[in-house]
Amino acid sequence: MKIALGQLEILPGQPRSNLKLALEYLKQAQSEGADLLALPEMAIPGYLLGDLWDQSAFLREVIDCQNELVRASEKCTIAFGGLAMDWGQRGEDGRPRKFNAYFLAQNSKLVSTNSGHSFGVKTLMPNYREFDDSRYFYDSRKLAQADGVSVESLIEPFEIDLGEGNVKLGITLCEDAWDADYSLSPLELLSRKGSDVILNLSASPFTRGKDNKRNRLFSQAASKCGVPIAYCNATGIQNNGKTVYNFDGGSCVYFPEAQRSPSLAPFESGVHMVDLNCRSYPEEQEVSETAILKTALEYGTKKFMDQLGCSKVVIGVSGGIDSALAATVYRQVLSEDQLLLVNMPSRYNSKTTISAASELAENLGCLHTTVSIQQSVDHSVEQFNNLKFQKGSSSTDFNLSCSEFTQENIQARDRSGRVLAGLSACFGGVFTCNANKSETAVGYSTLYGDHAGFFANLADLWKHQVYALANEYNRLAGTAVIPAASIDMVPAAELNASQNPEKGQGDPFTYAYHDALFSKWVEDWERKTPEEILEWYLEGNLADQLKIEPALLTQLFPNAEMFIKDLERWWRCYCGLGVAKRIQAPPILAFSRRAFGFDHREAQLGILHTKNYQSLKARALK
Amino acid sequence: MKIALGQLEILPGQPRSNLKLALEYLKQAQSEGADLLALPEMAIPGYLLGDLWDQSAFLREVIDCQNELVRASEKCTIAFGGLAMDWGQRGEDGRPRKFNAYFLAQNSKLVSTNSGHSFGVKTLMPNYREFDDSRYFYDSRKLAQADGVSVESLIEPFEIDLGEGNVKLGITLCEDAWDADYSLSPLELLSRKGSDVILNLSASPFTRGKDNKRNRLFSQAASKCGVPIAYCNATGIQNNGKTVYNFDGGSCVYFPEAQRSPSLAPFESGVHMVDLNCRSYPEEQEVSETAILKTALEYGTKKFMDQLGCSKVVIGVSGGIDSALAATVYRQVLSEDQLLLVNMPSRYNSKTTISAASELAENLGCLHTTVSIQQSVDHSVEQFNNLKFQKGSSSTDFNLSCSEFTQENIQARDRSGRVLAGLSACFGGVFTCNANKSETAVGYSTLYGDHAGFFANLADLWKHQVYALANEYNRLAGTAVIPAASIDMVPAAELNASQNPEKGQGDPFTYAYHDALFSKWVEDWERKTPEEILEWYLEGNLADQLKIEPALLTQLFPNAEMFIKDLERWWRCYCGLGVAKRIQAPPILAFSRRAFGFDHREAQLGILHTKNYQSLKARALK
Repeated sequence: MKIALGQLEILPGQPRSNLKLALEYLKQAQSEGADLLALPEMAIPGYLLGDLWDQSAFLREVIDCQNELVRASEKCTIAFGGLAMDWGQRGEDGRPRKFNAYFLAQNSKLVSTNSGHSFGVKTLMPNYREFDDSRYFYDSRKLAQADGVSVESLIEPFEIDLGEGNVKLGITLCEDAWDADYSLSPLELLSRKGSDVILNLSASPFTRGKDNKRNRLFSQAASKCGVPIAYCNATGIQNNGKTVYNFDGGSCVYFPEAQRSPSLAPFESGVHMVDLNCRSYPEEQEVSETAILKTALEYGTKKFMDQLGCSKVVIGVSGGIDSALAATVYRQVLSEDQLLLVNMPSRYNSKTTISAASELAENLGCLHTTVSIQQSVDHSVEQFNNLKFQKGSSSTDFNLSCSEFTQENIQARDRSGRVLAGLSACFGGVFTCNANKSETAVGYSTLYGDHAGFFANLADLWKHQVYALANEYNRLAGTAVIPAASIDMVPAAELNASQNPEKGQGDPFTYAYHDALFSKWVEDWERKTPEEILEWYLEGNLADQLKIEPALLTQLFPNAEMFIKDLERWWRCYCGLGVAKRIQAPPILAFSRRAFGFDHREAQLGILHTKNYQSLKARALK
Repeated sequence: MKIALGQLEILPGQPRSNLKLALEYLKQAQSEGADLLALPEMAIPGYLLGDLWDQSAFLREVIDCQNELVRASEKCTIAFGGLAMDWGQRGEDGRPRKFNAYFLAQNSKLVSTNSGHSFGVKTLMPNYREFDDSRYFYDSRKLAQADGVSVESLIEPFEIDLGEGNVKLGITLCEDAWDADYSLSPLELLSRKGSDVILNLSASPFTRGKDNKRNRLFSQAASKCGVPIAYCNATGIQNNGKTVYNFDGGSCVYFPEAQRSPSLAPFESGVHMVDLNCRSYPEEQEVSETAILKTALEYGTKKFMDQLGCSKVVIGVSGGIDSALAATVYRQVLSEDQLLLVNMPSRYNSKTTISAASELAENLGCLHTTVSIQQSVDHSVEQFNNLKFQKGSSSTDFNLSCSEFTQENIQARDRSGRVLAGLSACFGGVFTCNANKSETAVGYSTLYGDHAGFFANLADLWKHQVYALANEYNRLAGTAVIPAASIDMVPAAELNASQNPEKGQGDPFTYAYHDALFSKWVEDWERKTPEEILEWYLEGNLADQLKIEPALLTQLFPNAEMFIKDLERWWRCYCGLGVAKRIQAPPILAFSRRAFGFDHREAQLGILHTKNYQSLKARALK
């Protein structure tokens, strides 16, 4: 049996375009002699669509396209994930009932299961991270309850002739196979019901490390079920507004004897033929994490621009590492005339950073310019310091003055809100937000300043990952495309005289420690708080927990008081202004298993220190 | 039997503060002779908390506070909604299993049901609008499946002596009583199991019109069940980051004979005693919709500032209606020294609007000033027009110039991103976003310009509601606090010479039509698209559907081509740049049943015109 895994690049919310590509894949699968073409979950509508699911006109359009796909199954059987509607019934939200469903089409018709269902329904609904399945879809457990039948009766293989006599074909959708934390297992049921092969049609976004987990999990499942599991995932990007997800494909077949057919290159779309009779495959080569991140970063950046229809980008380059990496990434996907780099010095910018910015632009060979912000900033400060006020209809001697801190933010907003926004409009393009995850976590940025932009493609990368990527680009180029100064000097905002990288006066972070700390707050599956951190500190195993050198801790914090002061400072930022700023942040490209935005939903709630934290603190300070 | 309905003002994410208030209510209930104190759903933790639910330290803090509440039930029985944990079991997300639960505490201990459960679990989980229940909580249907018992067995009344012998007390949580679209009804079950009275503990946000729906629904339920239903809801505000919700209380008892005990005033927190033996109550008076909106607007604005700890506000006042209403609202909750109004004219601002802005400030008696933006804008335009560029290391004659449209946005950003952001920092406060819902729907605003601010308290009010509220303020004041000019002249952005309200040249909307149109796209439960709109237009019943004067349509659009051009223009804005702008919008105060933000989740997907729309269009243009 030859299965064509249709690793479809899905354009979310554009059913006709997805149908067109699916039909092309079908032709190719036919011509390559496939017995079955598999297509991903929600192949025609796309999967991450926000509330588009409550537009009935969109639903009808999807159904119409899916019907066309079914009609096209004349010469090749198709298994696809898609939308099923029961217009006559309500979902729990009172809208027409929608299913995240799978279909099997043969001879231009839908194939029914033995008990007469013309489609199957996703059973396990992810409602964590960026997923909102229960918001939109009625799962098979609810359906069983509503219809007064057992959920088991709804999960059954199709019996179908694919050219070599009848086979029992089980189909699952994405989460159905990730069953560890659910009280029932569709895979187990389908295997018990005699499936000869099981498909898993997925819309599974890229997350750092997920590949390995899936390979482990699906291999185990294939071995447990004793039949091959064919995994078919999408490529392309989809978004939830605040967060943008890469889909990396990875479609392949997992065999019960632990082999795995090789998959297409990550992020490559296309038809991937697997002969289920062939069981001898080479081991796939491991790729370094930084190399995968680099591919994902460029892919997501290019696809996001394509989807928005942007072809011109302005980047503010300070000479620092973040903007240098951003510029290097955009240069991979844009020509020298589509990319404009702008250095915007004030009196506080050092020669070192100014010349690093210009060196970068020369290395990248693209358009660049310099715009001084000093005159504009001086004008604002002078204007604010000399304002006259009235109170009601009376005059008043009330006045305002610009503190140094306020002047720092005025500079940052002048750069982004005035210069970059204005220049990108003149250029016919957009401007970028170069914030990394470390800054984004604690709101170390200025709203409408360096926090602004059309897209924050680095904001799910910790500072140490930014460095790793910068070094990777230089390694691949065999030369310092990103200037050594940007990598070697301390990162500094240069918004006042004391932030001077030439004197080693940089940002208030020691990334080796703070990246690890913030990551516990953000990325641990059960997120940690100062309570756990302080507990570990007192128990003497904080360095272990953070996987850092113990010496670093004692060097940074000679005593508990200094440790706590730093801890509370950044916790306040993470829970306080950091949240306010993230609410107004640009869309963020996700890499981790906890990206800010839709995967790290948050409310403005203020700071909480638990009672337990407070007693630990009292103990530490005694 | 005397029930004290504890209409608790909940501070989300601050368990100790909620515990403290709950204990005060308990004292009061005791002293007023209550047999039972009821407290809302999630009374101690709060309900809308984003992903705070995955911090175990927070969960332990909540449990600790709830235990303290239970211990306090020595002299008065307490029924409260809260968090229940099963640390030894996993939720479907792999984290410790959490329940949205209800508890009954008496004599300092939890009361168990006959089958031995020490708490009950919410059965019906809302996963629509701003609600994410299944993301966080294991419902009783999942629990029944995991434990291999029937869900019915988990829904049972407590048998308890409240001073006059045993009564059967059924408890439900919020959605449990809104059962129309679910396949089982906890109310019906509890009634079948002999409940003498049923509590509904809620965390039910304010939505325009929801009060009436609830009164109708709960009265019917009480009559169907044949027992009183005591409804206990919270006050205060809670948020989901992008969207801020008022909780208006409304706690009361619904009797089977259709009476209803009077509730506290909307948004008032406190203990509300109801004697279940008293069945004679006056009809409550209807309050006008505008009066309710006004109360909700002021309440939400004040509480949001309190929660953030902001006490000073800067508002850009243009002389237009939106900023005038915003200033009037903030003046209700701030003293004359906490509010600073700023008029920021350029060469395009008319005398009429400038003097309306100053008249408003005088009427409100607060601080105000004028900051011209002309010099700053001229500097930007000149700077951009005269830049020199390089390409790589070579010079180039590439240059840029500022179009008139770009200059409009430069003005808007100069006002907010430069002046208001800078001045509010000098003032030690924040600045507001005065966008209304009509503009927000189609992104008729400038990012980092008038779209910016710490809070958008008008962005869930259509333009016609803004007018209604402005008129209401003037009516109540008995004088034109909001100047007549701001109400009477056409709204205009005044960003170029052709936007001149003195000549009647205003915004490209006819609000009587466009508010109704956009509302169909945004607020219809099954949201409409150009497909339905064009279909109605062709069928001749569009005016009916939009509830507008038919003459308005023919006057605005002499022919189908003009109608379609306008329709597609705004649809493009709504689905295109409007989404991009909303992603970076400030938090929005919700009034409607579809506020932008967390209640109207959206992805950047581009524009879709369905095949059906395209054939309707071809027909219309033939």
